[in-house]
Formats: sequence, C-alpha cells, structure tokens
Amino acid sequence: MTDIQRFGESARWADVVIHRGEARWVEVADDASADVRGQISQVLTQINVTLERIGSSRTGLLQVLIFLADLHDSHILNALWDDWVPPGHPPIRACVAAGLAPGYLVEMIMSAALDE
Amino acid sequence: MTDIQRFGESARWADVVIHRGEARWVEVADDASADVRGQISQVLTQINVTLERIGSSRTGLLQVLIFLADLHDSHILNALWDDWVPPGHPPIRACVAAGLAPGYLVEMIMSAALDE
Amino acid sequence: MTDIQRFGESARWADVVIHRGEARWVEVADDASADVRGQISQVLTQINVTLERIGSSRTGLLQVLIFLADLHDSHILNALWDDWVPPGHPPIRACVAAGLAPGYLVEMIMSAALDE
Repeated sequence: MTDIQRFGESARWADVVIHRGEARWVEVADDASADVRGQISQVLTQINVTLERIGSSRTGLLQVLIFLADLHDSHILNALWDDWVPPGHPPIRACVAAGLAPGYLVEMIMSAALDE
Repeated sequence: MTDIQRFGESARWADVVIHRGEARWVEVADDASADVRGQISQVLTQINVTLERIGSSRTGLLQVLIFLADLHDSHILNALWDDWVPPGHPPIRACVAAGLAPGYLVEMIMSAALDE
Repeated sequence: MTDIQRFGESARWADVVIHRGEARWVEVADDASADVRGQISQVLTQINVTLERIGSSRTGLLQVLIFLADLHDSHILNALWDDWVPPGHPPIRACVAAGLAPGYLVEMIMSAALDE
C-alpha cells in the first residue's frame, strides 16, 4: 500500500489521505466554542490550509458533503460559501442536517484533486 | 487542474464534476412540489439524464448515497429503485434519514465511471 | 464498463464495487438483534472479511463514513475502533447521527485501495 499518503495520523484517524491523485479529509471547527458563523468560517479557512498543505487549491475541490446540526443555518453557510468558492471552478455540494458531536454545528467531508 | 471537467457550474456548485474517469453529482427533485413517489421518480430520471449527458449509463454507477427525509418512505424508494437499477450491474447503496431542505423528501449523491 | 468489478450483486445493490483500484462498500450488522457494542463489533469484523475478499487489508482503508443511530454510542464506537484501526495507517473518518433502518444502530460506508 505504498501508494497511499497520509497527513496527521493519530491513533483514530488521519487528517488527510491521498490515493491516486485524490485527497480526502474531514473538517470540524478547531474552536467549537464559536457560533455557527464562526464555525463555518473556521472550517472554510481550515480547508484552505489543508489544500495548501497538500499542494492543491480551492479550484481542485471535487466534492464537499456538508452536515449542519441545524438546516436553518443554511443561509449563513451559503453566504460564507459563495464568497469562498472559486468562480467557475466549484465542486459538487450536498448539505443535509445530521446529529453532530456536542457543540459542533458543522462538519464537512472533502475530496480534492492534486495537481498532476 | 486541467484534468477536472465540470458541467452546469453556478456560483455555488457544479452539477457534475469529473476527475480521472469518475463523475460525481447530487440530485434533488427538480419539482419539489411532488410527493415522495414523485420526487424519487424525478431523481431517478434525472440520474438517467445526467448519465447520458456525461456519456455513461446506469451500469456505470459505482455508489449512490441516499438521504430520505423520512425512512418510512424506504418501501417506495425500493420499489422504484428495483425497477430502475440494471440487473447484474448495481452500484453500492446506503440509505439513511437526514434533515433536508424544506419540501425536499429525497437527496442522492452519485459516483459513476465513465467509459474508458 | 469492463473496468468495474462487483461482488455480491443482488437486485438492489452490490456488496462491493471496485473501479480503478478503489473498492467501495457499505456495512450494517449481519445480526441486528445485537446491542450497539455487538453491532459495531460485527461491522468491524465484516469489514475485515470484505477487505480479505477483495485482496486488501485495514491499512488500505482510505475513508470510513459512520452513521450512528445515537451519537451517545460514540464512546463505544471509539473504544472498539481504536483497537481495530492499524497504528500508523488510519483512514479519514467522519461520524454523524442519522436515522437508520429499524433495529440498526450503526452503518458504515468504506473506500479502500487495492494493492497495485
């Protein structure tokens, strides 16, 4: 399995797993004491950081699956998202409500292409 | 990132993203005023249309993740699904209940292989 | 579509779909009469069996998306998971609560790399 690259391995999970030119990772807010706007902002910024870490960028995002604790927060998500997503190069996106760990208001699962 | 192909880009998301021979997309019913049977039928038909648009077919489906607003609708989903999925060439499928946007009763996330 | 390999096709889904060196599959407990600890143990064992069946191993896991019926079961999941995941080779992992079919307490969606 020499073709799998991992970043940030803990005993429970890896921060990022890369296989055949595709990176996958999960983000929740580093500081879950923030309100939903703060948590979503953090997650989007954390995605930027991860993309840079793996040598990709927002235009490389393929898919983002978003779990919100409360779908009424969608308009806050969309306002922050629309400012963040690169025009002309958006990923596919799904957003549903699900139960998240205590205090967490948003969780995102990403797939991104690496530069060839 | 010249190896990513998108269809139907808006400011928020792409309808379809293709990378390394795999297409991914999300479907909800175009007409959310329909009941659950109508919405599921629409989504399955919309998948057909997308598969044709990208030069694939139902036999190319790899994975379908289904979110139902109400799991009691599973029997309706299954009846429509079983008539739709190509015998001998089914994708993997997961189906769970999650909170969907107002009026929406089903949401599906697809991965499909393109012809080589 | 000769590049897609399936295992365990039924009229509704495949147990496993393999495409371009990546396997995907879904697991719920074979015996859903077990309690949550039993169901999670079963699912992890079933993942081992599937990995062997497809010629991979736990170190090949890329991503595991976990749906729990009740997030209060997370500590049970984590205890069993931490004993199961191979040190130094963890997948990415997301875990949220969602509505599952009656009696089912956990459902997992896996992606794994095959040996080249």
